[in-house]
Amino acid sequence: MTPEKLLDAVEGFSTPLFVYDLDAILDRLSLLKKLFDGRFGVSYAIKANPNMGLLRALQPQLEMFDASSILEVRRAIATGMKPEFISFSGPAKRKVEIHEAVDLHVGELILESLSEAEEASAYAQSKGLLQPCLVRINPLHVPRKFGASMARTASQFGIDEEQMGDALPQIAELAGLNLVGFHIYSGTNCLDPEAIAENFENFARIFEQAQAQTGIEVHRLVFGSGFGIQYLPDETQLDHEALPALVNPIVDALLQKPGFEKATCNLELGRWLVGPFGWLLTRTISEKSSRGSEIRTCDAGFNNHLAACGMMGSVFRRNWVFQNISNPQGKTSAYMLVGPLCTSIDRLAVDVELAEVTVGDVIAIEGSGAYGLTASPSRFISHPEPREVTYHDGRFTDASETERHPLTTLPA
Amino acid sequence: MTPEKLLDAVEGFSTPLFVYDLDAILDRLSLLKKLFDGRFGVSYAIKANPNMGLLRALQPQLEMFDASSILEVRRAIATGMKPEFISFSGPAKRKVEIHEAVDLHVGELILESLSEAEEASAYAQSKGLLQPCLVRINPLHVPRKFGASMARTASQFGIDEEQMGDALPQIAELAGLNLVGFHIYSGTNCLDPEAIAENFENFARIFEQAQAQTGIEVHRLVFGSGFGIQYLPDETQLDHEALPALVNPIVDALLQKPGFEKATCNLELGRWLVGPFGWLLTRTISEKSSRGSEIRTCDAGFNNHLAACGMMGSVFRRNWVFQNISNPQGKTSAYMLVGPLCTSIDRLAVDVELAEVTVGDVIAIEGSGAYGLTASPSRFISHPEPREVTYHDGRFTDASETERHPLTTLPA
Repeated sequence: MTPEKLLDAVEGFSTPLFVYDLDAILDRLSLLKKLFDGRFGVSYAIKANPNMGLLRALQPQLEMFDASSILEVRRAIATGMKPEFISFSGPAKRKVEIHEAVDLHVGELILESLSEAEEASAYAQSKGLLQPCLVRINPLHVPRKFGASMARTASQFGIDEEQMGDALPQIAELAGLNLVGFHIYSGTNCLDPEAIAENFENFARIFEQAQAQTGIEVHRLVFGSGFGIQYLPDETQLDHEALPALVNPIVDALLQKPGFEKATCNLELGRWLVGPFGWLLTRTISEKSSRGSEIRTCDAGFNNHLAACGMMGSVFRRNWVFQNISNPQGKTSAYMLVGPLCTSIDRLAVDVELAEVTVGDVIAIEGSGAYGLTASPSRFISHPEPREVTYHDGRFTDASETERHPLTTLPA
Repeated sequence: MTPEKLLDAVEGFSTPLFVYDLDAILDRLSLLKKLFDGRFGVSYAIKANPNMGLLRALQPQLEMFDASSILEVRRAIATGMKPEFISFSGPAKRKVEIHEAVDLHVGELILESLSEAEEASAYAQSKGLLQPCLVRINPLHVPRKFGASMARTASQFGIDEEQMGDALPQIAELAGLNLVGFHIYSGTNCLDPEAIAENFENFARIFEQAQAQTGIEVHRLVFGSGFGIQYLPDETQLDHEALPALVNPIVDALLQKPGFEKATCNLELGRWLVGPFGWLLTRTISEKSSRGSEIRTCDAGFNNHLAACGMMGSVFRRNWVFQNISNPQGKTSAYMLVGPLCTSIDRLAVDVELAEVTVGDVIAIEGSGAYGLTASPSRFISHPEPREVTYHDGRFTDASETERHPLTTLPA
């Protein structure tokens, strides 16, 4: 989105402000669905960005919503999605959540353990239901070049590959469950097409093994995509055009194997779809020269964007991509950008090159469409909640979900 | 609080649950006020824990509330505190916040920069008011043994010590402001009494210099305490009994200097007062043996306690102090405790020794009274909001502030 357009949003909705470009996101979704020529449906991981305006726009174009809590299931249903097109994953589902999901007839319960399977089966049976489910498997190996990786070491997610032989046949036998397939999500935020293909090849091998161990006719396979996006200035975008040549043969070979003839595949993702088309816009409140640094304080800090401040799993804080949209052509120099919080760890960027920043300028933080607002401690130090706006068909719409009561609002 | 008592709270309010022991906190406050024999009043930093139940209990015993946003000022007023006993600090005060603070007649506006001083002065003048204020100073040096330290390097907080000579006389001249004193908060979470005393000695030297540069009659000095608490198993508590012998001579000497005869001193703190008397209680939802680790998933993760998960400024994640309050006498072994989030970074503890943990057990996270709920991304993945309860005079009271609507609640 151009700086001018982003400034229009600020004009209408003040700062701090999250802007989501639904037009671009929907274009990206079409592109994705064409890319693999029908081999993959798309399952959107709500956790990446659960904004209702965004979910409602995505819903008609999606095969599935993946919910990672029962409250995310309710969000998906609130968009008008039929429960049969909702999957429910998560490593610590409470009994009440499993029961509600079964009662709602969610299409795919993603089982993370044998005990979860037993709970769901018993409950479904007590209600005279047969709950469709997938088993999530946790691979032993994940290729390098993935960000957060759930394999190799101990993990709370799914059934470990080396325990499949033991657990899968037991789950397949459970009377209240209809085991329809398998699910793997083993690593995130990968920018290397060959590493993604290597990962999918490993998935295919495990899926085949899981089918052999259970003897089921597979209806669904979920490939956790791990497709990454650019966060840092020196990163490149994932070359998604390179993926089909690498990935399609893997899928085609798998689907010809016995037991897979009726299988359909879904790509599960969130970040890649929405991340690049969201911005956090923050206004500079004051300026200070301190010990060789030009500091600009902003009205958003880690309370509004934990990940951009390097506090969400990063070992070292590195600057994301920032732009001074109020003065895009200005002469650049180095700034320290900090948030409004009374703590010295509230740093947005250190030594970041920006077009000259004066008080009142609006800074855009790129790559903020996923894991932004809801992944941040927005109540910390009681600053006003950022608003969220969507951009669609040339118009901005307020999509904020925060209650606007006296303890969270300020006059404009 | 005993395990039995904590379990009573769970019985009444489910999990995840923050419990704040107001009786213990009020005892600690009395202790603090006696400790220095009247030399210090106490200013509670609301940011540490802004729960209204807690603030209301503290209010009658406090000299001041320190608010770090205008919404925290409103919280303080909502307790019944007179605005004259509220200070307002923060490195990025918006104009509307400064104006509201002046209109409310807050007792001490803590000025972080010359431009903030000019804004406040101009506004106060336009309303025919004289706004009392302190200048915050950012020292060049902070002793070792402090946690987050705001000195030595570039900082957004206050006026750098080396710029005082330039800025302070200008602020003292501003017609809408009444400069009544100075404020320093330069480091947090220190467990060493001698380092704290050394820090205060540096404060005293700077305060003296600031008085000389402005010629004011000092009425108020704020000492940011930096008093630390134990978070890690191998840490000790701060030996607060050792402080008076080290600190009192510094204060007494300062108050005999010209210009300081009418000065009163406040200790500003939050963590030391409330941190040790809060617990996050979380229930184990499932168990898994994975690659040599005994994993227990819990219904609270970094969505409810960012700091305990090592994601709030820590370079390395280290285990806090955990207790299995459902089985305190059980045989101990090592566990990995994880939260309910669909991300591998959601780890509460790794290789932590706990009395045998089975599904349904309640785990207490110690040291959770400060920087807990509001400093955590509680909306992440739409898990139910933890409740907050206070314990006072033998009774638990629901002090939750979350709206209980369908997207944030589950049946018990």
